[in-house]
This record gives sequence, C-alpha cells and structure tokens, in this order.
Amino acid sequence: MINHQQPLGNSRRSLGWTGWRRVGATLGITLLALALAPHSSANRASQSPAADGKLRIIAFGAHPDDCELQVGGVATMWAAQGHHVKLVSVTNGDIGHWREAGGPLAQRRRTEVEATAKIFGTSVEVLDNHDGELLPTLENRRAIIRLIREWKADLVLSPRPNDYHPDHRYTGILVQDAAYMVTVPFICPEVAPLKANPIFMYYTDRFMKPNPSQPEIAISIDRVIDKKLDGLAVMESQFLEGGANGHEGLMPKNATERARRVKEVRDGHAARNIGVANRFRSVLAEWYGAQAASGIKYAEAFEICEYGRRPDKAELKRLFPFF
Amino acid sequence: MINHQQPLGNSRRSLGWTGWRRVGATLGITLLALALAPHSSANRASQSPAADGKLRIIAFGAHPDDCELQVGGVATMWAAQGHHVKLVSVTNGDIGHWREAGGPLAQRRRTEVEATAKIFGTSVEVLDNHDGELLPTLENRRAIIRLIREWKADLVLSPRPNDYHPDHRYTGILVQDAAYMVTVPFICPEVAPLKANPIFMYYTDRFMKPNPSQPEIAISIDRVIDKKLDGLAVMESQFLEGGANGHEGLMPKNATERARRVKEVRDGHAARNIGVANRFRSVLAEWYGAQAASGIKYAEAFEICEYGRRPDKAELKRLFPFF
Amino acid sequence: MINHQQPLGNSRRSLGWTGWRRVGATLGITLLALALAPHSSANRASQSPAADGKLRIIAFGAHPDDCELQVGGVATMWAAQGHHVKLVSVTNGDIGHWREAGGPLAQRRRTEVEATAKIFGTSVEVLDNHDGELLPTLENRRAIIRLIREWKADLVLSPRPNDYHPDHRYTGILVQDAAYMVTVPFICPEVAPLKANPIFMYYTDRFMKPNPSQPEIAISIDRVIDKKLDGLAVMESQFLEGGANGHEGLMPKNATERARRVKEVRDGHAARNIGVANRFRSVLAEWYGAQAASGIKYAEAFEICEYGRRPDKAELKRLFPFF
Amino acid sequence: MINHQQPLGNSRRSLGWTGWRRVGATLGITLLALALAPHSSANRASQSPAADGKLRIIAFGAHPDDCELQVGGVATMWAAQGHHVKLVSVTNGDIGHWREAGGPLAQRRRTEVEATAKIFGTSVEVLDNHDGELLPTLENRRAIIRLIREWKADLVLSPRPNDYHPDHRYTGILVQDAAYMVTVPFICPEVAPLKANPIFMYYTDRFMKPNPSQPEIAISIDRVIDKKLDGLAVMESQFLEGGANGHEGLMPKNATERARRVKEVRDGHAARNIGVANRFRSVLAEWYGAQAASGIKYAEAFEICEYGRRPDKAELKRLFPFF
Amino acid sequence: MINHQQPLGNSRRSLGWTGWRRVGATLGITLLALALAPHSSANRASQSPAADGKLRIIAFGAHPDDCELQVGGVATMWAAQGHHVKLVSVTNGDIGHWREAGGPLAQRRRTEVEATAKIFGTSVEVLDNHDGELLPTLENRRAIIRLIREWKADLVLSPRPNDYHPDHRYTGILVQDAAYMVTVPFICPEVAPLKANPIFMYYTDRFMKPNPSQPEIAISIDRVIDKKLDGLAVMESQFLEGGANGHEGLMPKNATERARRVKEVRDGHAARNIGVANRFRSVLAEWYGAQAASGIKYAEAFEICEYGRRPDKAELKRLFPFF
Amino acid sequence: MINHQQPLGNSRRSLGWTGWRRVGATLGITLLALALAPHSSANRASQSPAADGKLRIIAFGAHPDDCELQVGGVATMWAAQGHHVKLVSVTNGDIGHWREAGGPLAQRRRTEVEATAKIFGTSVEVLDNHDGELLPTLENRRAIIRLIREWKADLVLSPRPNDYHPDHRYTGILVQDAAYMVTVPFICPEVAPLKANPIFMYYTDRFMKPNPSQPEIAISIDRVIDKKLDGLAVMESQFLEGGANGHEGLMPKNATERARRVKEVRDGHAARNIGVANRFRSVLAEWYGAQAASGIKYAEAFEICEYGRRPDKAELKRLFPFF
Repeated sequence: MINHQQPLGNSRRSLGWTGWRRVGATLGITLLALALAPHSSANRASQSPAADGKLRIIAFGAHPDDCELQVGGVATMWAAQGHHVKLVSVTNGDIGHWREAGGPLAQRRRTEVEATAKIFGTSVEVLDNHDGELLPTLENRRAIIRLIREWKADLVLSPRPNDYHPDHRYTGILVQDAAYMVTVPFICPEVAPLKANPIFMYYTDRFMKPNPSQPEIAISIDRVIDKKLDGLAVMESQFLEGGANGHEGLMPKNATERARRVKEVRDGHAARNIGVANRFRSVLAEWYGAQAASGIKYAEAFEICEYGRRPDKAELKRLFPFF
Repeated sequence: MINHQQPLGNSRRSLGWTGWRRVGATLGITLLALALAPHSSANRASQSPAADGKLRIIAFGAHPDDCELQVGGVATMWAAQGHHVKLVSVTNGDIGHWREAGGPLAQRRRTEVEATAKIFGTSVEVLDNHDGELLPTLENRRAIIRLIREWKADLVLSPRPNDYHPDHRYTGILVQDAAYMVTVPFICPEVAPLKANPIFMYYTDRFMKPNPSQPEIAISIDRVIDKKLDGLAVMESQFLEGGANGHEGLMPKNATERARRVKEVRDGHAARNIGVANRFRSVLAEWYGAQAASGIKYAEAFEICEYGRRPDKAELKRLFPFF
Repeated sequence: MINHQQPLGNSRRSLGWTGWRRVGATLGITLLALALAPHSSANRASQSPAADGKLRIIAFGAHPDDCELQVGGVATMWAAQGHHVKLVSVTNGDIGHWREAGGPLAQRRRTEVEATAKIFGTSVEVLDNHDGELLPTLENRRAIIRLIREWKADLVLSPRPNDYHPDHRYTGILVQDAAYMVTVPFICPEVAPLKANPIFMYYTDRFMKPNPSQPEIAISIDRVIDKKLDGLAVMESQFLEGGANGHEGLMPKNATERARRVKEVRDGHAARNIGVANRFRSVLAEWYGAQAASGIKYAEAFEICEYGRRPDKAELKRLFPFF
Repeated sequence: MINHQQPLGNSRRSLGWTGWRRVGATLGITLLALALAPHSSANRASQSPAADGKLRIIAFGAHPDDCELQVGGVATMWAAQGHHVKLVSVTNGDIGHWREAGGPLAQRRRTEVEATAKIFGTSVEVLDNHDGELLPTLENRRAIIRLIREWKADLVLSPRPNDYHPDHRYTGILVQDAAYMVTVPFICPEVAPLKANPIFMYYTDRFMKPNPSQPEIAISIDRVIDKKLDGLAVMESQFLEGGANGHEGLMPKNATERARRVKEVRDGHAARNIGVANRFRSVLAEWYGAQAASGIKYAEAFEICEYGRRPDKAELKRLFPFF
Repeated sequence: MINHQQPLGNSRRSLGWTGWRRVGATLGITLLALALAPHSSANRASQSPAADGKLRIIAFGAHPDDCELQVGGVATMWAAQGHHVKLVSVTNGDIGHWREAGGPLAQRRRTEVEATAKIFGTSVEVLDNHDGELLPTLENRRAIIRLIREWKADLVLSPRPNDYHPDHRYTGILVQDAAYMVTVPFICPEVAPLKANPIFMYYTDRFMKPNPSQPEIAISIDRVIDKKLDGLAVMESQFLEGGANGHEGLMPKNATERARRVKEVRDGHAARNIGVANRFRSVLAEWYGAQAASGIKYAEAFEICEYGRRPDKAELKRLFPFF
Repeated sequence: MINHQQPLGNSRRSLGWTGWRRVGATLGITLLALALAPHSSANRASQSPAADGKLRIIAFGAHPDDCELQVGGVATMWAAQGHHVKLVSVTNGDIGHWREAGGPLAQRRRTEVEATAKIFGTSVEVLDNHDGELLPTLENRRAIIRLIREWKADLVLSPRPNDYHPDHRYTGILVQDAAYMVTVPFICPEVAPLKANPIFMYYTDRFMKPNPSQPEIAISIDRVIDKKLDGLAVMESQFLEGGANGHEGLMPKNATERARRVKEVRDGHAARNIGVANRFRSVLAEWYGAQAASGIKYAEAFEICEYGRRPDKAELKRLFPFF
C-alpha cells in the first residue's frame, strides 16, 4: 500500500452503468477463479531457487505492492541476469481498497502481484495475515526466518521501522528480528540455518525522525523503467482504483478516461523514482561517477541495516552487478 | 472468593459511626457515588461534536492528568473560542497513588478529570485499561482509531514514543499506529473513516535520545494560566497528595498546611510551563515575533508527527487560532 | 451463521445478467449507505433501557443472525409487551458469505440485523470482532460484562459452549465468564455493577457430548411465527443467498425464482422451530399442560446456565410472562 | 502521571489528625505495614519442605480464601500430624471486595491468609495475578509446575474446571495442564522434575453439568471444625465484610453487632461443611463405616482427577491418614 | 550470546577423537544430517494427494508418535489399498525425552516419524511448535485448516479434548475448531475451501469425565500388527529409550539387552491394541459379526466428532473399506 | 507421546559401556547433576543483599554470557570492595549452541554462569525464558521489576534497545519499561517498591542508528582483566565451542589444540575490551585525566539511560568507586 499524499487523481466522477459492468467483470470474478486455481504456478512452485551460483535476493513488504514499488526496477534487472528474486508481502492486503475488502480482495491482490511477478521475472509469495493488523509476533518472525532460509538469501530487503503505515513499521521490525537468527540452528530447527548472516538492507523513505533514510547505494533503473511501470500497472486495485484512499470518481467510465487514468498512474510512479534519483544524486555519483550520475533519471536506493552482515563496497558491487 | 448466594447477612443499615463520615471524605466515597452515577453528564454525552465548522481536537494521554498537564492551557483557549476539544486518558490511572489503587482509585481519578474538564470547557474520556500495563495491542489501537473517527478530528495530540513512563511511550506508539489507518475504510468498518488523515502532533518532553523534542509551534498560555492551574488543582490525588510517589508527609493536617500545599503544587505546575516557554523561546519568536515572545511567561509547545498529514504554516495557524 | 447441513436449496443455476443487476443493487451499495449513516438510529440510541419496571433481556450470539434464529420469536413477544430486549452479535460476520467478505460484508450484515430488529421491536448491537476468529480474551469478556451491566439485565441468553462453530462455542464461554463477574464492582469499575447476578440461560442445540441440551422451559411462538420469519427473511445475505456455504445457484434470476427461494427459506426456518417443539414437547407440557402443549407447532426453548442466579419456577414465570 | 523528579513537597510529617488512626484501623494500614515486611516469615521461608518422609500436599485456589474454604479442615489435620501442606492462591484477590481493590486489597488479603496459615499450621503463597483476569497461559501453567515440583508434592488439590467463577474454572484448567508435565524434565528445566506424577484431586462443588462432582473420599473434620472456623474468621475482608458482594450494611457498628456478625459468618461456614457431609454421606460410609459415618457432622471431600496418577484405596488411605 | 562477526576460530577440522564417533552415533548426529537434507523426500514432496478417487485421510496428533500409536494399523491398511493418508504432529516433540531436548531432539523425532511413514506407506508432517507449550491459538487453528484443505480430506482424525497431556487436549480443541471452518471460503482465503465438511473422528482413550470414549467403529488390525509394531519400533527415542519418562536404566548395554528391550517395547504396544479390542468387543461385533469379532486380537477404534459431517453406517463403511 | 503409566521397563541399571563415560564428560552429564542440585548455593541463596551500606548493582543481559561480557570486569572490582552485584540472564540460552539445545543446554549454561559468578564474586540468576523468543511482555516486565526491587538496586545495567540480536533489543526495552515503575507501589504490590528510581545505565555497543552509543563513564579493568578472562573461559559452550555459530572444527582434539583454542578465545575477549578503551579514550580521560587514560589498556563503559534517575558526576563517582 502506498500513501497517496499527493493523490494520483481525485476528481470524484459518478460511475455510469456501462462502465460499471466492465468494472464488475474486472472486479475479481475472473481473478477469483484464477486465485482459486492450484498454487502450482511456475512463479511459486519451487520454494528454493536452484543452487546455480546466481544471487539470491528476498524482499519483504507489508502489502501486495510494497516490494514492487520499492525494488521493482532492480528486481527486474537482477532477474534479467538470471538471479533469483522473491518478493514477499507479509500481509494479504485485505483492507487495501475503498470498496472491497476481506478474502475476495486478498485473492484479487494475490492474483495481481502474481501477474506483476511474471512481468518482472521474479517469484512472489503473499502471507495470510490481515492487512492493518500486523504485529511483531514470534509466529510472524519465524515465518520470515523460514522464508529467508529456504531462499538461502544473500540479500534481504525490507522497509525501515519508521514509515507512515503501522504494517510497514512492523514489517521492518519483523525482518530486523529475523536478522542474525537465520544463522542460529535451533530456532526453527526444521529448516536448515544459513551459514552466514545475509546482508540486510532497507528501502528508502522520506521520514526524518528519529533519523533520516541514508542509502549507501542507489541504482539507475532507467533501462527497465517501462517494465517496472508495466508491472505496477497490473495492480489496478491499488493504483488505477486508488487503493484504500480511492473513490468512485477515479473509476474510468470509458476507454478514453481509462487511458487518461492509466497515464496518470504511470506518471505518478515515474515521478516517485525521479524523486529518489534527485534526492540521492550524490549516492548515485559515488557509484556511477558524477557525470553519468547526472544523467540518471529514475533510481531505487538501499540502506544497510546494521543487524545483518556488514558489506564493504566490493561486496555491494557483487550484490548489485550493474556497474 | 465464595459466592454468597445465601448471603451471610444483608441488612443494609445506615452508617452511624461518626468517624466514618470523616473516612468517607478522605477516601473518596462521595466522589465514588458521583462516579457511579449515569455517564450522561454534559461532558460525555455526545460522542461526536456538532458539525458547526469549529475545530475538532482530540488529545491522548496515558493517565488521567497527562493531557491536562500537556495541553490544558491551549485546550482552554480553544474551548473558549467554541472549538471542540476532547481529552482522552488511555489508562484508568488505577495505580497512580501511594496509598490507594484499583477500581476505587480509577473512579476517583475519573471524577477528578471530569471536574477538570468542566473548568477547561472540554470533553473527557477515560479508557478502562490498567495503569502500568498498557501495551500496543490491536484492541487498543482500534479503540483509538474509533475515538479519532467519532470526534472527526482535525488535530490529534499525543506523547512521543520516548518518555520516562512505559505507558507514555506505548500511548505514543498507539496513537502513531492509528495515524493514516483512520482513513482506511475497512479497518473498524462500523465507524465511518475520515476523509483525510488528520494532523498528528506530539507534546514536548525533555528526553534527548534517540532524538530531542523539536516543537514547530509554541503557544502562550499566559491568559489562561490561572484556569489551567485551577483545573490541575482539582486532581488532588495526583498533585496535592503526590500520586504514585507521594507519601503521608504530603497530606495537610489543617487549613494552613493545606493552603501551603496547594500553593506549592500550583507553583510547581507554573514552573513547568515557564520552563517550556524558556526552552522554546525561539519557537515562540517564530510565531509571536521576537519582542512579544520575550514577554511570554507560560507556554505549551507541539511537534509535528511525520505519520499524520503534514501541515504548512498556514494550516498550523488555522489549527492554533491564537495569533 | 447457521450450518446448512440440510441446505435450504442447492441447485447451482447460472445467474442471468438481468437478475444480477438487481442483486448488485441490493448487494450492499444501498445498504452500505445506510450502514455509514450516524449510529443514532432509534434502535441503538440509548444504551440503557428506561427504568420502567419492565423486563430487561440481553441475548448474545456469535454472528448477526444467531440471536435472531434462536430467540427471535420470544424476543418479539417480550417486545410486544413493552419489555426491553437487546440482541448482540459478538462478531461482525465478515466471513459469513460465499462471495463477499470483510468490512463491506460486516456493514451489510449490520444493516440487515438492524432491519430485523425493527421488525422484532428489539435493540441490536454488533461488536467489531472478525468472524471466525473469536477467542475468549479478557477484552471480549469485559465488553460483554459492560453490555450486560449497561442493559441492567434480568436475563442473559447465549449459546452453550458446545456447538458446531468455534465462534458459537467461544461466545458461550465468554458469556459464562461474564456471569457472576457482572456483580463484582471493581472489574470494569467505570460501569456500575449489577446488584444481583442475572439469570443466565442457553439456547438449545442438537449436540449430545459431553452432555445434551436440556431446556427447563419451552415457549410457544405460534402467535409470532410470521413476524419471526419476516425478520429472518430480511437477512438475505445469510438465508436467501446461503451465507458461507451458499453459491451462485441459489441466487434467483427473476421474480418467480425469488418467490420460490424466499418460500424455501421460510419453510426451512419454520421447520427448525417445529423441530424444537417436537423435541421438547414434554417441556412444553410442563408449562402449558399436556393438552395445550400438544397443539403447539413452533417453539423456542431455554436451559438454565448454572453460573447465573438459579431461578425457581415462579421466577421463570415472571421472566417469561406468556402463560 | 507526572514524574516528580523535583518533588513538589517531601517533608515526611507524622500524621497527627486523630480521625486518621480510626481510618487506619478500618482500612488495613496496620496490616499493610505487616504485608510490606520482609517475606521471610516462618510460613514462607522454605520453598521446599524437609525430606522427612512426611506427606507433601499442595492445594491451589483462585483467590486468597478458596483453598482455606475447601480444604482448611483436612489441611489442619495433616499439619497436626507433621505433614507439609501449602495453600496457593493463583490470583492476589485484588477485586474481591465491595469497597477496596487493587494493590492495597491484595496486601490485605495476603496478610489475612498468612494469619490463617498460622492457625492451620500450613504454608501459604499468593501469586501476583489480577483477580478476575486469570487465563490459562503458559506463564501461569509454568508457575504452577514449578510450585508443585518445588513442593515435591505427593498430592495436588484444585477446583474442577466447572465452577461459578471464571478464575475458579481457569485455576482448574491450569492445574490440570500441569499434571503429568511436572514429570517431564525439560519443561521448566531449571527445577528438578518429579519422579512420578502426583495424585491430583478436585474439591467438591454443586455444579451438575457437564458432569457432577463425584468425590471418592470424604473426611470428617469434626475434630478441627473450630480451628477451621477460627482460620476463616481471620479473613475479615471476605467474610465479615462480605467480599465482592458485601456492602456497608454488613459492617458492625459496635461490639455487639460485631459479635453477632462474627457468629453469622461462623454459622455460614459451618453450614457449608455440614452440607458436604450430608451430600456425601455414602462416601463417608465407605471410609468410616455406615454407623460412624452417620455421626459425622462436618466434612470435606475430594474427587480424583484422571490426569494425575490413579491411586487405589490403599494409596488414598496413605494420603489421608485419618482412619 | 556474542556475535562472532570476527569469529574466534573457524578452521573446520575433521573430528579425530575416537570417542567422539561413538558420541555421534548415540546422539543422532547421523540422523541430524538426514534431517537437514532437503525436505523433498518422497513422503513429503506433494502437499496434495492425487485426485484419483481414492480416500483422503489426515490424522492429527500432538507429538511425533501419537498418530502412529493411535491409527498406525488402519493407516497401513488404507495405504495398502492406495488411499492417501497423512499423519501430522502438531508439535515437534522437543521435550519428549529424559536426556535430550530442543532442536536436536525435534530433528531426531522428525527423522524417526519419516522412517515410520516409509514403513506405513503414509505421508507425514511435523509442525514447528514447542512440545509442552501448545495452545489453541488462531495461528495453530489456521495451520490445521490449511492442512485439511490441502489434503482435500474426506476424514480427519484427532484426540478428544480430554486426555492426560495438555498438548493432546489442545490438539483436540484445535482440530474441533477447524471443523466446519474448512468449508468457509474467506477464512484462509489463499487455500481453496472444501465443498463439504469432512467426517471428523476421535481416537479412543481411557478417560471417563466428563464423558467416556464411545467409538462407533472398531477395526481389526490383526493383518498389519507386525508392520505397526515395526513402524513404532523405529521411534527409539520414544519407546526403546522411554521418552520423557525414560532413564538410563532403559538403555541396553549390549545386543542381548537390546533384543530384550525391543521385545519389551513391542509387547507393550501389542498389549495396548489388545486392550482396545477387548474394551470395544461389542463395537467390533457390530461391524464384523459376533463370531468374527470374538477372534480379533488387535484393534483401533474411532468415535464420531459431532462438529464434522455426520456419517451414516454406509458412509463409515466407505471410509473404512475393510469389511 | 504416550503415558507409560505401566512403564515398559524401569530397572535402573548402571551404565557399563565404556565409551559412555566419555560421552557423559563431554555432554555435561556431570554438570547436569550439579544443575539439578538444590538452588541454595551460596551465590543464589539470598535474594536480597545485606543492608550494609554497600552498593547494590543489578545487571541484565539477554543470555547467560551477556552481562559477563559487558560488565564482568567492573563487576569483579565492585565485588572485591564488598559491593553487591547480581548478573541476571533474561533468557536461559537454550538455543545458544550449534549442536546442543533445549533444557540440557539451559542447564549447562546455568552451571557455567554460576561457575563464572564464583570467580567474579557476584550473584547470578537465569530466568526460564526460551532463547530467541524473548518478547516485551508484562510478565517479563514484572519479573524484572521484582528483581530490581528485591535487590534494592542503586544501579541497574542493561543493553540498549538497539543491538544485533532481537533478545538483546527486547531486554533493553524490558529494563527500560521497568524503570520508574520500580517506585510505583501498586504494580507488583507483593514486593516493596523502591523509594527512589535507581540509576539505569546501558552497556556500549557499536550500533550507530538511530543514535550511537555515548557512554558518560568508562572504567579501566586492567587490574582485573585476567579474572574477567578466567570467568569468561568457564563458559566453554559459548566461547571455546563457539556458541550458536560454532562448528565441529572448533572442538580441540587434544591438549595442544585445546590450549591453542583457549588462548584464541582469551585473546578475542581481551581485544574486545581493548577496543572499548580505544573507542572511548576521551571518556576515560574525563575520569582518569589524559595521561593516566592514555595508559589504560582494557575498559568497560556505560551510558546513562534517560528513564532512570539522572546522576551528576558526584553520584557517578559514588557508584563507580574506582578513582
């Protein structure tokens, strides 16, 4: 879930009947059927990636759209090189809409992120926790420990424990609380421990207290920005329809309106990644050189969590093989 | 405990023993009677303030005295202008005394804050959570979401999550965890969501780690300082008697001692607000101009919480219409 | 929620488009608007009934339909005599449907039981707990203690702790755990205790282990059976549409099908109350005499819970003034 | 609550007001002083009884008076023979009064049961759990496992899980949940396990569902009935003053009234044990022979819990060496 | 614990000390290696059995040996007919031994039940919950709902909620709490609901209160008793070594002692199933006829749980195709 | 698990197998015997230190080695002057090893820290909470409040709430949550409150976010460094064997390897305290003068927690009487 503090569109239009039927058709009846199909889709079939020497990255977000927003570009770039990327939503997103909720919405959102994962070339998993009710329990911590271990992760991504949504903050705490523990054999003894504590990194955010977001690395996603925007566009419940803060006025009534709304959403997402590039231009410069950095338009950036293994610059370069 | 279904004795005799009346006076038996009267007192009758275009402020504190100490002056000023102010204690204060505790103390303290609310012109509510045992549970978070929604709050006040008392810290966390969620329709679906995330602000405190209190606005309460001190004086259990850290030595034995003790308490409270004015003189200057600010004796100050809507100076001025 | 072990209808028909629009219109959009209206409807406005010497009955069920099914007939009879009856659903019913769920369903179901309450002449309240997730927590126990006290109940009704649905069983346990405690002043000290432990009674059910349902009283509802069926018919989400175990085949496509389906539902409900009369004919005979009892067609029956005050036959007669 | 780091006044004056002394007498200030004295009273000093071949009995009750009521007579008889008896209250009884509550009441009640224990010749312990809020948590289960192990109990007593007060029921469940586990070495590994599962027995009660109280043994307490009544009389908060269901009318105003009230209480307690003897006359006959049994006036009775070791008649005779 | 980020020593040398190898053999180091191998063993690879028209049975027990003891014989008979049987241990058994505990024991016990499953021809799963700490939480309930759904179970087996070990009782409650809910689509919406409530049945036990074990069906396992005893023999930690109540004296010192001990264990298990046949001879007679029943030596028996679908005799015959 | 009420074999034979004794030696069977001995060792016998005017310090760590690492040197110096020092491990350390776990490991680790305490001259206590599962519950908070009160602590030490291990962070939070509350009489009313809030101080760590470790005092432990290293050397499970991140390669195979490994461990620990001295050289200079400070090799350092009483330099000098 992303906080539309600058809403991507907010003219409250009445929804004509014709458009409604299309909405209805989209609105989860078809997707529901998909959602109830066996889980053995290619994206979710294998819990552990092949031991093929490729990188193994696992990213956690609170809702089915958070990982995609924060690391969708770099995830696509990793996947294009054959690295193994898994995006995990710690809640099922079941209150992330202004008109729908509960299990049907959870199914719709899972179907959406599965479609996005196909576009990104990544794996995806959605945990069945109620949206808006996430707590840093031992059960949740252990679920995360198991996922990191099963993925044999080299790199683990998460939000910081300070962000606007309580689910985001508690996702940050849960992943912190899994750091190091993934190496301790006799917690969750049924899953083999990792030999080394992975690198843990945070996504960036705009919050300043108690301390601001300070990424050590920023990556240009200019090459894949269209694919990222395509992947996000699939999540209509969150973006086209506006998620928890949307309203009927956002729903397009015809093809023209729909095209306009789709563009509005894409522009909003693009602007977000432009903002990251601008805010962390100096970090880009450290990695790309000042001149190249000045030409980068879209970026994603990551900050080292002190509770994982501490990488030096060489190891960061190995983890982000894009230079 | 044995169930006296055949009570061992049940003639309800009038209490003749003369000493008893004095006991009653000391021990809050009179107040108890008040406390058990129907809740339909003017202060608490309407859960939602009238939709009259006035401001709607809701303040949270951990105990029945915290809101009053932190914002009693400005609350009185808002109320005097007809704005709607509600002070909520998240615990019932039932261990906040050196000699009394439990339900009888909770009743006494509720009666005290109701009397204070009459002086301030504000509404008041005390939640039935044990003092000293507050935790950031979903139940508490949802209670706070409902209260903010029912009040249709423009402004929400709370302690920071760093303060000396665990209940204060967890009150801070609970109110943070309600921010934004008050706009999400399908959490607490039985209470209509707010259309916009309110402004959330913290009270000030003296703690420096991990980051100090940094108010964006400070308000002179010189005009209402006497009313604030009157309102606080009503809470004898906390101040005259010393609360949890009091002792018998504080209890006045006669009218002279009582007058001296009352003055001692008033001076202490006054000193506290003098301290706020001194520490945040530069913030006062931003709002009143340097010269006027230099003459302000008593102040209350507030810091923007990043998880609410971010007000600009104009919006702050609208919320604090005292300039 | 009622377990359709003998489903009231199960032909899975495809839903033609025309019928669908009508369903859509009914399906919560209009009701949603009602649900979000202020709560100050006549039915819910006053938390305490007038102290007018009339009986005060509060009934608890797990879902918004359980009280109505179990005591809707007698509730209507009490209400007709001016007694005060409140039906409380301990969960919001938000998974009680085969196609809808979450907050929108919770709102729909609240709207439905409010409409039913108008027909019965009773009050109603729905607690915001997730359906299917009820646990015997202290928070829930205290909510129930408060409701019983505020209603100043003479009689409290609930399911037994053995029934097919975990929410039913835990509702039974929660109400048991509130018995006697409603008389203890310093639990929930903000609400005045009851002077005497009320009578607590269970609804009947068909479960035999560890012990069968053994009602001490059974009441003819022949006079009000139509009103009861009318009240239940309002809950279309549960009965016409089949609730959690329903399916598209139940949805009528036109007025004829709808009339048939409505009749099918009414017949099912009627059969249920005929079954109660037949199973407890001897109990009816104790109260009505054998001859009159033999003519009773529809009944509701109630069993004394040992944890409330134990009524003698005279007190039962006072509580059920229908002889 | 505000932290008086610079206390507003702290001269500890002696309390001169004459009326105050009377308050103290009524309100347990003297007892409070006792309660705060070091815990090293003879009764509580040794956690493990001497390994002297004597029987070791530990009895659990929900509140500070429950064990005393249920087994105070037999406990006195065991103690008189040099056997080791410990009475444990699982809650601190802090809402068990109509006028007092919280910590001060908990202290008063602990002081009372310590005085009772002196009369009975038994040990006593009160766990610091809130009265009215007991739940079958792992923490509570483990506390009970530790107490049983430390006492190296041969016999463990508790209420059945069906009784009128939720704390009684959950005490029954907690003790059941400790049965057998006391023999498993690696739960609570810091306390040595018992080599054999003790005998667990229930007190009697009058509840019939799901199954009635069926004691296998009943013991005449005729020889010690006065001592039992003396021990109960000490608990004035519960009996003379009426506990949670008491009221001002019970409080004696002078010596005559007090004597009358004391007698009323004693008679009530005596009647209770007469009732046990009458209800279980046939069980008494099994152990004393029909003739002797017919002359027994006061009794206590106990039912084997199936989750402990199953004693035969010989072992019961060894545990109850009174024949 | 200190984080060896600069490990104090890390050369992984081969273990030469001769005695050590013996330690390894005793302590399950070999088994540990097996346990940490990928989980993709044939027994556990597929979460859902093939949709081949065969029966689908899922059995729950508290510890890794409970299902095997209670239904190992019939499980083997089902498996031999090609039906799909899964045995689930709800805890990991990590305190079920007198000398070992924690994760290493959990791994050993999983390895043991996996070996047993190979002998029986069944599937097996062990949930990572601490032994001795099982509680009826929503997380555990949902895990069980998912397992039943994924197995598309026709028949679900569990202990009754009354048995000597708290984990057994809470396993019984958890499975009861999953009954019916497995059909409700929007609890655990990520796993497709069952179309019909399965049959739920209890194992037998010897407890009489509040009501005795009353199986409706008993099955001769004479044909497979050796296989059952072979399967149980594999669980040396529990049986040969005596589990939580074992001791060093049970450990055989040489081949002769070992053979004697193995026989002792087999005889004990056989006696148990002889006991079931004897206790429920009349039930056997209902299904096999009196004469055939009289010749049955070993049996397992099952009681219908009222919260599942109620089978008639024909359906029971279909589920137990052994006549 | 099956209850062997008729144990399958119970002759306790002596263990003859020769290899077994060696196993026993390695695996802590001897230590186990010690661990199960009565708790009345000199170190743990008295819960409250004598009221002899000496300082009373209580230190909390997450695992049985954390206090020893962080304050073992200064603890030894305090003890040498006759001050009362207690080291408390909030978990039992039962997953802190790469090969062992559970209760046996908990017993081994308790035995180790008891041996260390003998070397340091301190008291020690280990709470029975699972390692890796510590949460900031009320039960844990209250346990810590009681321990601080019973110790009548002048000074309380703990980790900061930011450290690499979740148990460390939650230990920090728990001790913070006990600060001030130790002075409130009616939380944990069975233990007398402290008259004044103690000084609370944090250990140092290397974490920078949200704010770095900033000790106000650093103490030379040069005089006692050998004793500290001796005390740590006793904890072989953690250091010689490598704790949770150890492996077989660390285990010495003969005396030479063992001597080398012991030296390696000592050097590692020494280096850690050299690091503290170097990082906080300027703090040392404040207390020892620049010249003396420059010669200090080993140090421990402490930071004031804002939630305890705030000491001035004189009070710090009184608490650390080493200048």
